[in-house]
Formats: sequence, C-alpha cells, structure tokens
Amino acid sequence: MSSIPKIVILGAGYGGILTAQKLQKELNYNEADVTLVNRHDYHYFTTHLHMPAAGTDSVDHSRVAISRLIDEFKIDLVKSNVQDIRLFDKKVILEDGTLSFDYLIVALGGEPESFGIPGLDNYAFTIRSINSVRLIRQHIEYQFAQYKGDESRKDRLNFVVGGAGFSGIEFVAELADRIPLLCREYDVDPALVHIYNIEAAPTALPGFDAELVEYAMDVLKKKGVTFKIGTAIKECTEKGVLLATDELIKTATVVWTGGIRGNRLVEAAGFEAMRGRVKIDEYLRAPNQEQIFIIGDNSLMLNSEGRPYPPTAQMAMQQGICCAQNIVALIRGQQLKPFHFSHKGTVASLGKGEAIAVVGHKKYMGWKAAQLKKLVDLRYLFTIGGITLVLRKGRFL
Amino acid sequence: MSSIPKIVILGAGYGGILTAQKLQKELNYNEADVTLVNRHDYHYFTTHLHMPAAGTDSVDHSRVAISRLIDEFKIDLVKSNVQDIRLFDKKVILEDGTLSFDYLIVALGGEPESFGIPGLDNYAFTIRSINSVRLIRQHIEYQFAQYKGDESRKDRLNFVVGGAGFSGIEFVAELADRIPLLCREYDVDPALVHIYNIEAAPTALPGFDAELVEYAMDVLKKKGVTFKIGTAIKECTEKGVLLATDELIKTATVVWTGGIRGNRLVEAAGFEAMRGRVKIDEYLRAPNQEQIFIIGDNSLMLNSEGRPYPPTAQMAMQQGICCAQNIVALIRGQQLKPFHFSHKGTVASLGKGEAIAVVGHKKYMGWKAAQLKKLVDLRYLFTIGGITLVLRKGRFL
Repeated sequence: MSSIPKIVILGAGYGGILTAQKLQKELNYNEADVTLVNRHDYHYFTTHLHMPAAGTDSVDHSRVAISRLIDEFKIDLVKSNVQDIRLFDKKVILEDGTLSFDYLIVALGGEPESFGIPGLDNYAFTIRSINSVRLIRQHIEYQFAQYKGDESRKDRLNFVVGGAGFSGIEFVAELADRIPLLCREYDVDPALVHIYNIEAAPTALPGFDAELVEYAMDVLKKKGVTFKIGTAIKECTEKGVLLATDELIKTATVVWTGGIRGNRLVEAAGFEAMRGRVKIDEYLRAPNQEQIFIIGDNSLMLNSEGRPYPPTAQMAMQQGICCAQNIVALIRGQQLKPFHFSHKGTVASLGKGEAIAVVGHKKYMGWKAAQLKKLVDLRYLFTIGGITLVLRKGRFL
Repeated sequence: MSSIPKIVILGAGYGGILTAQKLQKELNYNEADVTLVNRHDYHYFTTHLHMPAAGTDSVDHSRVAISRLIDEFKIDLVKSNVQDIRLFDKKVILEDGTLSFDYLIVALGGEPESFGIPGLDNYAFTIRSINSVRLIRQHIEYQFAQYKGDESRKDRLNFVVGGAGFSGIEFVAELADRIPLLCREYDVDPALVHIYNIEAAPTALPGFDAELVEYAMDVLKKKGVTFKIGTAIKECTEKGVLLATDELIKTATVVWTGGIRGNRLVEAAGFEAMRGRVKIDEYLRAPNQEQIFIIGDNSLMLNSEGRPYPPTAQMAMQQGICCAQNIVALIRGQQLKPFHFSHKGTVASLGKGEAIAVVGHKKYMGWKAAQLKKLVDLRYLFTIGGITLVLRKGRFL
C-alpha cells in the first residue's frame, strides 16, 4: 500500500480542471496520488452553453475530452457519479465504487434554484449541461415542426425565458438570433413567434452598470424580445407560465435561468451550507477542516463589503489554482496562501456581434465588447489547453 | 366575361405539374384559361422525402417554388386548400373562394391508408409532405435528446417502420444511415438503438425481383435493421406497437409507410371509387365524364394482366402529359389519344451508395444502382425545370 497522500478532486468544471492542471504541474513524482472524478469524460464550458442551447453553435464547441487536458500518467480519471461524501471515513462513494482521500477538493458545481416556484422543476428546462442544452435546442426546433402539423397551436411559437440575469440575457439573445433561421426552415411567419424574458427583480442584469443594461435591453428589444421586468412567475404548468400579474403566457417552452444554488451533495455531506453553498476560510477550506477544500459554485466567500461573491467561472478558476497551491503547501509543510479574488471584468454576450462589458472602470458595448467576449473565450481555451485547443475549439468569427 | 374555356388543375404534385407545363407549352394565346391550385406554394418530390424524413438530406432539396416551374403570365397559381368538388355545378370550393371550370384535372395525390389498424392514425407518423417529414426528422432527434435526460427510457431508442414496401425500405435505409450520426452527436452507444421494419406481407418489397429483395434485406440487416416480415401490426398505442405475434415493441416513434389510398375528396365528390381511386377510361377521364380527368394516386388503371398499376411518380407524370394533350385535343375538336404506360424501370435506394434497380429485364444492385437512382432524380429535375433546376437542387455526390 502506498503511503503517499491521496488527493481526490470531485468535478471537472472550471474549478476542478484548473486544480488538476495546477497539481499536475506543481507536484513532484510520487509526491501524491491525484484522482479526478467527473460524471462525463468531457469538460464543458458552462459560460458558452447559451449558444448550443439556442442552436446557434454546435455542442462540440462547448466541450473537450478531459483526456486532452490532463496527463493521464500523472492523474487518474474516474468517470462516475458521486453519490455521497463521507467526511468522517474520508471516503467518497461513487455509483460504482469508493475512493479514499487524504485531501479532497469539492468542485461539483451548482444546481438550478427554483425558489419553490410551483411547476418549475417539472416543466422548465435549465441550461446546466451538454445533455440539457441539446434537449433545449431540440425541444425548441420540435415546436416549429409540430406547429406546422397543427397550426391552431400558436402557443408552440411562444418561448419564455425565466430570469434576466447573466445567463438569461445571454440565452435570450441567442434565441432571438436563432428564431429567424427556424422560421425560414419551417416556413413560419416570424411575426407569429414571441420571446418573453421574465424577471422578478426590478431590473435586468442586476448589479450591472445601468447604462449598459439599457443598451442590452434595447439591443434585445430590437431583436424581438418582450421583457417583463419586476414580474415574478407565480406558477409554471404544462400549459405555460402564470405571472404575478395573473397574466398567463401559453407556451410549451420555459427555460429557467433565474437562480443557482450549491450542490445537494454538499448539504448531504454535513457541511454547514446556505442553499448548498459553504462559507469557506481564506485558504478555501471547509469550516473546521484542514484538508477539505470547497471551490466554485458550492463555496461562499464575502467581498470587502460583506456581500457574497456571485458564483462565476472566473472565481472558480482562480480558486482552483489557489487550492492546488495550498494542497501542495500542506503536503510540504509550508505556509498556506490566502485567496484573493482578482476581478478581471465582466462581458455579457447579446448575440451575434453584440455584447456589453465592464473591465476595471471602462465600459464597452456593441462590436468591441463582442470582440472582448471572444477574446475571453479564446484566452480560456489557451489557459486549459494551449494553442492546440484554441485552434480546435475556438470561434474566431 | 371571357368565353374561352377554363381549365382547373387540382394539385401540383408530379401529375399536376406535368399537366400544367404541357398545357402551357401546347396552348395558344387565349385558347384557354389555366388555373393551378395547390395547398403550398411549392412542388415537392415525394419520391425523395425519405431522405429529409430521416434527416440525411435537407428539406429544400426536396421542393421547389411552383413559380419557378410555371410561367405565371400563362397560368394562374392559387395557393389554397380544396374543400369540395361540385361536379354538377362545375365548381371547386376552396377554403377561401370558388373556381368554375370547363375542364378539371384532379391530381390531388393520395393519403396514407392504415387499413383500420387501431391507433395508427393517432400515434404513427407518415411520410406525406414537407411538413410531415420535418416533424419526423425532429421527432427522431428529440428522442435522442430526451433519452440523455432520462436514460431509463431505453424505448426512446427503438424506431419502428411499418411497411417494407418501396417507401418503407427507402426510409428505413436512410434511418439506418442517420442513426450513427445521431449516436455521435448525443453520445449514445449505437448498440442501444434498434430499428424495426414490420411487414404483414410474406416478403419485403412485394412485386420486386426475389434476388434483389434478398440483396436489399442483406444490406439493411448489415446496417442494423431488424426485419419482421409476414408479421402484421395488431395495434399501435402511445407505448409502442403490438404485433400479431403478441410481441410488444416499446417505442415512441412509429413511421407508417404500409399503404396509400386515394383522396377522400374524390369519394366525397361522388366519383365511384375504390379506396379513393377511380377507374378511369383510356383517355384518363372519370366514368361518364367528358371533361374531367383524374390522374396520379387517385386514378385506377389495370395492366394487361387485369391488375391495377401501383401509384407511382412515373405513372403520374406520364398521365399528366397525356391528359394535357387530350384536353388540348378536346378544345380543338381533335381526336383523343389513349394512354399507354411506358415502364421505364424501378430503382429503390438503400441509403448511401446502395440501391437496387430493374430496367427492362436487367437487374442492378449496389453502387451502379445508386448511380441510376441519382440519374433518375436529376432527369426529373431536368424535365420540370431544365438545367437551372438540376444545378440548384441536384445531388451529385
């Protein structure tokens, strides 16, 4: 039996992949055993999923085989579903086996949060995985095909997006770009199609610069999106969505982007969590745990104003690198480094050739922001896979 | 009011288009008013629909705008649904108007025949129009997308094609070509997908040369098709198909190709019909009618052995030309010409690079037959639209 420490990483999202890659680089030969567990044999780019969900880009531009990102001589890959995390036994229960660990990185990603709105769990789609976005894309196109078989069902041409936060806005923009193509393919009059974006908060893109929010809404309104801001969804049924105003929007397609919470496995494991998110220490460790790190959507960190940072890819990536460094430090008996989030800026895509961005104190909109968005995507590909991955998966146009 | 004779053509399928084109060519200026009525503003190639239905070719390769085939200075196009044919009043009732005629050509095409098998009308798809094949294509792909959201529903990966006649075999072959692509797109193990072809008759492709039938079945079996020949479908439900052997094949996708009958409008009009098909005279006229012609799927003609000719595109086209000539002869008080069917041969596609064909007494199979099939398609495009249409719509590879 090897006596070298066992490191187990749960999840190969932004946080997990960056942790694995950093460990792979920093650890010396035989300094530790590293195992990366993931549900799929690919890593996907969550921030890109709004495109394949709407059908404006192929799914394969949103994922890459993990074996291309990781050196399998140095890291073991296990394709499995995590079923339980046993803190006391230092074991992870997989659906087809168990893994012991000395160091654990929980990077499982979040889950959609429906805030108890009745029917959302049953009748709304969520943009959360490759499988879920293929389903959304096909469901949308199927509505057009079915409508042409029974033109009395005009509600099939209504599409409702719940939530006008980051994901909601980015998806609704792609959908607005996709609809004209579907209308052409299915001989449907575009005037019959309606896209609704519903948001309970008093503004779209809460937290974003007001001028940019206005710009974004103008762009999307011109593309045919109808906004209902400051309007909660009361219920979602098979027939459509009922709004707080008692207006009923009949539809067969509701895509819910209104919230994200931490993973239920994290709560089940016994960590003290708020909506599945665990308040971690400055070294990214779970409370009272020396060797268990929680990063990404399941971690909760407060900014200097005492408010939680929103869960983003940027945050998960920086946490991944820091947590790998801290694990190496622990193994070597060195000093841990506290995590400091470095905000690189924010870009929201508004469909083809349009975006808004904030970098430092500068604001961008339109074509320039769209180029920035592409740059961010390409930069990520370069970070995890070098120039080869940029050339294989990058979108330059 | 013009006193020149009014010719109305119902339907712009193979028969109707050829009639219209021949009339356009033969009639002198002001010799007759010609109106072509069709449900859509495009003509589609029924014999090609098995490809877009399976998703192996685009819908736009299977249709062309009627305005590109007809000179609208010479022929009026009316896009409408025929609701009733009033023989006594010499009127056709459209959903949005009426048309009087002196000469009528009924070329409305057939309808699927379900032979009273319970559930087929409700739960099975049929390959009958551009709208219906887009629905089939999307439905099939949607099964893959849904399966990845709930892998317990393995029945979603079963596909049942009812009927192993010409259309059934051609469709099942395309489907077998399409499945591997869908498996790759959706990360589905191809071993989980099953294609069944069910036929009540004691052989597939009844009427075809036995050696070619065997060849065709071998090709399709190698592509993964499971045949159940000599096996009737007892019932079709939401859950799947129940066979005469009491075997239940669970599936969400049944495509019925097992039969065709004449149009119900023809029966409703009071013509004496057998399954919607009217036994026409040697000049293609309805019984006891001097100026009403019935061609294509709604006409019934007996061959020299006293058996009805099967309704084919070839038959409809030849009838279209002959009936146009006879109408011109009637207007000019000339002698009518009896119709003689000239059998040019038969080709059945078996998917990419494979086909079987009989031309005269020669049999072809494999690559050569597949080239023949392409030639037949290109020849048709040339016939109706010249070299321009061949270049726009032709598939050469």
